[in-house]
Amino acid sequence: MIGGARGEGEILDDAEEVGRRIAEAGAVLVCGGRTGVMEAASRGASEAGGTVIGVLPTADPADANPYVTHVIATGVGQARNLAVVGSGDAVIAIGGEWGTLSEIALARRLERPVIALQSWPLRNRAGTDLGIAETESAEQAVSAALEAADPQP
Amino acid sequence: MIGGARGEGEILDDAEEVGRRIAEAGAVLVCGGRTGVMEAASRGASEAGGTVIGVLPTADPADANPYVTHVIATGVGQARNLAVVGSGDAVIAIGGEWGTLSEIALARRLERPVIALQSWPLRNRAGTDLGIAETESAEQAVSAALEAADPQP
Amino acid sequence: MIGGARGEGEILDDAEEVGRRIAEAGAVLVCGGRTGVMEAASRGASEAGGTVIGVLPTADPADANPYVTHVIATGVGQARNLAVVGSGDAVIAIGGEWGTLSEIALARRLERPVIALQSWPLRNRAGTDLGIAETESAEQAVSAALEAADPQP
Amino acid sequence: MIGGARGEGEILDDAEEVGRRIAEAGAVLVCGGRTGVMEAASRGASEAGGTVIGVLPTADPADANPYVTHVIATGVGQARNLAVVGSGDAVIAIGGEWGTLSEIALARRLERPVIALQSWPLRNRAGTDLGIAETESAEQAVSAALEAADPQP
Repeated sequence: MIGGARGEGEILDDAEEVGRRIAEAGAVLVCGGRTGVMEAASRGASEAGGTVIGVLPTADPADANPYVTHVIATGVGQARNLAVVGSGDAVIAIGGEWGTLSEIALARRLERPVIALQSWPLRNRAGTDLGIAETESAEQAVSAALEAADPQP
Repeated sequence: MIGGARGEGEILDDAEEVGRRIAEAGAVLVCGGRTGVMEAASRGASEAGGTVIGVLPTADPADANPYVTHVIATGVGQARNLAVVGSGDAVIAIGGEWGTLSEIALARRLERPVIALQSWPLRNRAGTDLGIAETESAEQAVSAALEAADPQP
Repeated sequence: MIGGARGEGEILDDAEEVGRRIAEAGAVLVCGGRTGVMEAASRGASEAGGTVIGVLPTADPADANPYVTHVIATGVGQARNLAVVGSGDAVIAIGGEWGTLSEIALARRLERPVIALQSWPLRNRAGTDLGIAETESAEQAVSAALEAADPQP
Repeated sequence: MIGGARGEGEILDDAEEVGRRIAEAGAVLVCGGRTGVMEAASRGASEAGGTVIGVLPTADPADANPYVTHVIATGVGQARNLAVVGSGDAVIAIGGEWGTLSEIALARRLERPVIALQSWPLRNRAGTDLGIAETESAEQAVSAALEAADPQP
């Protein structure tokens, strides 16, 4: 799950619900480990009994939000965005910060499926399919991510 | 200057002209150092007598295209995208690959001015100004980049 | 725990015992997630019911050894060594490869306590204390690491 | 050339002479771009008319010392150590900080020749040859590095 260090209102509610639903499905939440949208999703997953992996930009584990189960203190700054998306089977993008856009792009470069919720409305000049599923709710987003991560016949 | 490892036709012509015009203006071209759009821009700059810095994903300098003056062999994979945009005063994005989008996003996160040429037509959900100048030609792009890098009163 | 992708005999036995003892103490094993010394430690921890976090150099989770519980696929090559040591409360170094030496150095730079077992016999020119505890057995190493990670009064 | 952000007396004198001799030989100096030993070497090379490439840990080019010709602002923290040694044909290590040791180890892992001057007196447990040339003066160090980078028949 990717999202910014800031965020308010409906986006935080959505993020928390995404975290909760991921945990309820028995999946592990991997995120950037910090505040804002990341913390809301971590709280949702943690309070539902799930496991949260927080991949920090700094080398100091104390920078993680309190809902992270396992902290990875990378020390590589924004380059940790690559580790966040590389570690997921599917990527749910929530909200519209620049860091989130960089993660969407890196996720697609690594051919990870991306599910967008209140995030960047991307198109390219050619108008071809970008492999990003636009969703309207946390429930839809998690359902699409679980299906993309482990397609059923 | 950012652009993909692939590219054809008009995009390569534009990239080469961008490289040439950067060199003619006495500026240094920083790019990803590899093939495709990166190599076209490198060739343009090199043949006009300019300096080209190629910031590679691998730790092997031999992976650079032949027009690079100074090779930085980072060994950090796609995380080198951060180094490419962090090292420029302004960023010209050419073409529409995923790596290029990640670089546009990282550049804006670092508050570098971005000039787009045949690249991603970005907008966000709120429709606010993204700080990306859309241009129609290599001449316009380089002119906008030089102005953004060193604004004249 | 840090150690190389190769290793044989006694070093692998020690690594497996270190992993097992870490798990038995209820601690989480963080390692580089690959073969050799890393895999032996992962197997030891996993078979004792512990949690293993494998921080890979590649962006492909399939590169992890089969005993890793949670894979972090960083995509940043050897720069992931920084994430491995940054994520531990104490660092046990096993064996003498170059990658292991880079991790010892980065760990000390981050002021993490380092416990050495069959690893580099370091000294500096001034002969000052380097903050590295030399140990003679897996049992000693894990005991020293647990004490360093969580000093008892 | 690798060396720490601190340093005093003879080490700074040696670093400056190393920089000067590299420039006089027509070679390019690649270093970490910051203060201390790095700045002394940069000054030596710059004042002798040479080119200095400074590979910074931060994403802010303003963090470079004033003698750097081309700044690479990587934004990947200490992971930039990999880029510094990966970009050189040979590596001269000056002084004994932990960052310098991590760079020596990474350089040897990449099979770059390492020349040590007042640096870590390394040996391994087996006592095998480590591929590190110990030198006694800046003149010897640069001479050994030039020979290692471009062996003459």
